[in-house]
Amino acid sequence: MAPAVRTGSWVLGVDSGGSGIRAALAPADAPGGGPAASVAAEPVRTGPSGIDPEHMAERLAPAVRTLLAETGASGVDAACVGAAGMATLGDGLRAELPGFLRETFGVRRLALAADGVTAYAGALGERPGAVVVAGTGAIALGTDLRAWRRADGWGHLLGDCGSGAWIGQAGLEAAMRAYDGRDGGSQPLRTRAEQVFGTPLHALPGKLYPRPDRPAVLASFAPEVGRCAPRDPVAAGILRSAAREIARSAAAVCPEPSADGTEPALALTGGLFRMGATLTGPVGEELAARLPRARLVDAAGDPLQGAVAVAARLAAGSLALPADPALLRLVGA
Amino acid sequence: MAPAVRTGSWVLGVDSGGSGIRAALAPADAPGGGPAASVAAEPVRTGPSGIDPEHMAERLAPAVRTLLAETGASGVDAACVGAAGMATLGDGLRAELPGFLRETFGVRRLALAADGVTAYAGALGERPGAVVVAGTGAIALGTDLRAWRRADGWGHLLGDCGSGAWIGQAGLEAAMRAYDGRDGGSQPLRTRAEQVFGTPLHALPGKLYPRPDRPAVLASFAPEVGRCAPRDPVAAGILRSAAREIARSAAAVCPEPSADGTEPALALTGGLFRMGATLTGPVGEELAARLPRARLVDAAGDPLQGAVAVAARLAAGSLALPADPALLRLVGA
Repeated sequence: MAPAVRTGSWVLGVDSGGSGIRAALAPADAPGGGPAASVAAEPVRTGPSGIDPEHMAERLAPAVRTLLAETGASGVDAACVGAAGMATLGDGLRAELPGFLRETFGVRRLALAADGVTAYAGALGERPGAVVVAGTGAIALGTDLRAWRRADGWGHLLGDCGSGAWIGQAGLEAAMRAYDGRDGGSQPLRTRAEQVFGTPLHALPGKLYPRPDRPAVLASFAPEVGRCAPRDPVAAGILRSAAREIARSAAAVCPEPSADGTEPALALTGGLFRMGATLTGPVGEELAARLPRARLVDAAGDPLQGAVAVAARLAAGSLALPADPALLRLVGA
Repeated sequence: MAPAVRTGSWVLGVDSGGSGIRAALAPADAPGGGPAASVAAEPVRTGPSGIDPEHMAERLAPAVRTLLAETGASGVDAACVGAAGMATLGDGLRAELPGFLRETFGVRRLALAADGVTAYAGALGERPGAVVVAGTGAIALGTDLRAWRRADGWGHLLGDCGSGAWIGQAGLEAAMRAYDGRDGGSQPLRTRAEQVFGTPLHALPGKLYPRPDRPAVLASFAPEVGRCAPRDPVAAGILRSAAREIARSAAAVCPEPSADGTEPALALTGGLFRMGATLTGPVGEELAARLPRARLVDAAGDPLQGAVAVAARLAAGSLALPADPALLRLVGA
């Protein structure tokens, strides 16, 4: 028996980030209902023009063909590609991806989104509010549905304040202080660093600096800071400072309550918050102090679900999230 | 008429760091009196075995031959090579350089020193005390003439607290905070960052992260923090924090007064302190609070002079600074 084939419109969502690419195809009128595929486990290459559009296209094409075959769809009506670095490194994608997706899969309407925007759409849908997305890095995005506001996301040397890399770096710095006998050191963090990296600490620079993925190496130590925090005041202080930075970023982007008094929604998303109450406790306290106007809600979905949802709204011609040249570029809409 | 030729013993000092290599040759009994040569303006390459000994040798050889010809010396009795990274990246130099210098120039006694040790010898000679060497990075070394103590110098991701890179990074982070509208931002630093880097700040990550010399780029902004400090409390706060870190590092390595009550000497050396009173004022206050037992003195000489002085003491068989496997390796002494 032939599979039941939907003849309606189909939409594609793509989520591209530091841990690889994922894609999902869904009926435009039921964006929660389609199959998803893990396209590749490595991130898309970054070259002189930023994120490499050919590299993304050649990884995406076979995965989308597989999804089309699974669903029996003949093509894609609308798509949303969310990518880490879209705002600052997305020129190549903005130049090349629309033509590729139109010619290869018939995509007529396309959204090119910063990963923070797809995280927002996944977490909060089209409500006014703010999200903080924190993993190795950290960025906050907020909107009143007229414009976007962004805070941080500037990378481990210029910001990403409160992120995994930020917490891990502060933890390793405290370990080195203890090794040196300087003020502000933490013996528990020193012990954990020696065990995790398998080296006396004077050899840690030689292990860290040659690595191309230094921010990820720093972030790998963040869970150790979380583990030490209940019994180590230095580690607890690092998490308190991170919580303050996260709340500052949220406060900088969160809109005012709407005219009818509805409070903006606020969601915390990303792998950092899996650290649990040792971090989310202080974050909740700092948010209550700095952003009492917002209502903290659980994220409804992830960035891939957000990308599919944006594509579905594009297909319906009813996207409420505001376009933005860097954060949410709409093509053919 | 033939030049007057000294027939006594000659010693060689070498200073290798981020801004190149310099060498100086001097009579062993008058180490202040010889000619110096700038060997190369670029730093010695770093490879898989650390600082590349062949690269250093091939740059050093013609410069030393020139110095020998200038002085009429027939060879070198003792030498001291001070190099940035000697402690952690010096395995290749320790393996190869002694044989090269013995076979090529007849060097019988050699000291392989961390640049902090030659800075110490240049600044304080062979007195007990401590130095803080701060430029792009920052390290503190102290000795009671029995052993060395080291603090920091772990690079821009693990420490170098209070250094040029540290101050510049804090300044740029404050600029990004102002750009975002986050707490803790500085509009004066934002304005200076836009002017210095010639870009709106959202494009700064794209200018910084592709650079191989990111710590130097960060440090290049430190003087701007110094310029803003008199009228900007955020910039002043950064310098106050840097001063505190410098004092903490000094306190961690400075020896106790000697048995006869002589206070240890303390010197601040390196390019960072050219920032002047805007930094040295707070550093003096923090040192007075944390390290009242030390006497702050002006550095007598630079690291190249320190290297020559160590070589002269080696030639005389009377080096008082203590040997150390990583910081001051003595060969043939």
